[in-house]
Amino acid sequence: MAAAEAERLESLVLVHNVAKRHNIGTMARSATAFGVAEIVLVGRRDFNAFGSHGSTSHLRFRHFHSLSQAHLYLKEERDCDICGVEITDGAISVSQHPFRKSTAFLLGNEGMGLSAKECEICDFFVYIPQYGGGTASLNVTVAASIVLHHFGVWAGFPERRREGNKFALAEKPTKQMRRNCCSETMESVIESRRNRRENAGRDFFEPAEADNTRSTNGLSELFSDLG
Amino acid sequence: MAAAEAERLESLVLVHNVAKRHNIGTMARSATAFGVAEIVLVGRRDFNAFGSHGSTSHLRFRHFHSLSQAHLYLKEERDCDICGVEITDGAISVSQHPFRKSTAFLLGNEGMGLSAKECEICDFFVYIPQYGGGTASLNVTVAASIVLHHFGVWAGFPERRREGNKFALAEKPTKQMRRNCCSETMESVIESRRNRRENAGRDFFEPAEADNTRSTNGLSELFSDLG
Repeated sequence: MAAAEAERLESLVLVHNVAKRHNIGTMARSATAFGVAEIVLVGRRDFNAFGSHGSTSHLRFRHFHSLSQAHLYLKEERDCDICGVEITDGAISVSQHPFRKSTAFLLGNEGMGLSAKECEICDFFVYIPQYGGGTASLNVTVAASIVLHHFGVWAGFPERRREGNKFALAEKPTKQMRRNCCSETMESVIESRRNRRENAGRDFFEPAEADNTRSTNGLSELFSDLG
Repeated sequence: MAAAEAERLESLVLVHNVAKRHNIGTMARSATAFGVAEIVLVGRRDFNAFGSHGSTSHLRFRHFHSLSQAHLYLKEERDCDICGVEITDGAISVSQHPFRKSTAFLLGNEGMGLSAKECEICDFFVYIPQYGGGTASLNVTVAASIVLHHFGVWAGFPERRREGNKFALAEKPTKQMRRNCCSETMESVIESRRNRRENAGRDFFEPAEADNTRSTNGLSELFSDLG
């Protein structure tokens, strides 16, 4: 993969109704480590709880209320493949790197695998081979991490420079992003506002002015209760 | 890697003083999925709490009180390399598969990396490349999973057969293992008994006869609180 081409390639993670909130934290850690451009969250009201965990200067969050909205966005605005991480008949081992261009990875709700509706929007599927006598459904972040790692190897993403026993941190972008909210599409904002009116007192997103005195990018809080 | 040779190759995980107990559960899930032969636990008293989570019919647990005991065991009885998973100057990217034979992977305590003492027993080091503008210390199970996955690819471990959207489960070995305890070395048993006498009422391991009516292999309980 030529360097110029690698620069244009992006990985995204599409998360639909993840049941366990703490999984989003480890997911964000891995997504940050593996250079993911955006985590696209799709789902129900209770799913939005972690919208308030904040976006970060390096990792964008985006929210949609429905899978079809997210699908439209990924196809029309991002022009990316949607790759389901699932053990299906046609699935290819992720170590074979069956990628073609920027890719959004869709992971099943923990332990459940992908639903028929989720499978419908996927362009292709990868699976993570298992070995030995036992079998176990992998933790959703573990599965995502392996896939994102391989995508980075395939895409030739430049490796982060190492400093001593750590990876060097890039300078933060100067653009200050609002804390306590996802990046939103216009449609999402409109629907969110409508829902807000209809459900006064039970907001999807915390008000933007809630806490502008904090200078963190939200990652530390996101990670604080994680191993 | 010839099939006959792959059959003799084993991966092990060496866990020294992991601070967060729930990480052992996800670690066991991943170790099971990736055909790990044994999880070698090394550490202090409080570390032994999850000894009682039980061994499984497919995944062995073994406990040592000190790193040097574990080192001796891995070298003399298992004849394996010890590979530190750490960002050091000489570390090689795990995607380059710098393996030679059966390997025990030593992972740092969460967020802390490997200590000097831990590094001393390592034959070589691998690191997991990070990409993009952000940086994050990976969750210990995520790091282990990526490394174990690559070892399986390198070793040519036979992939588990897939049945529909699941991996097929192998028949359980007929030998019934004791629940509620790690496989122990003679030294470990002796030291454990001595400690037990000295600390009556605060056992390292639950008594073997505690619950023989349960037919599970312990994995379900180990996984029950995990996403």
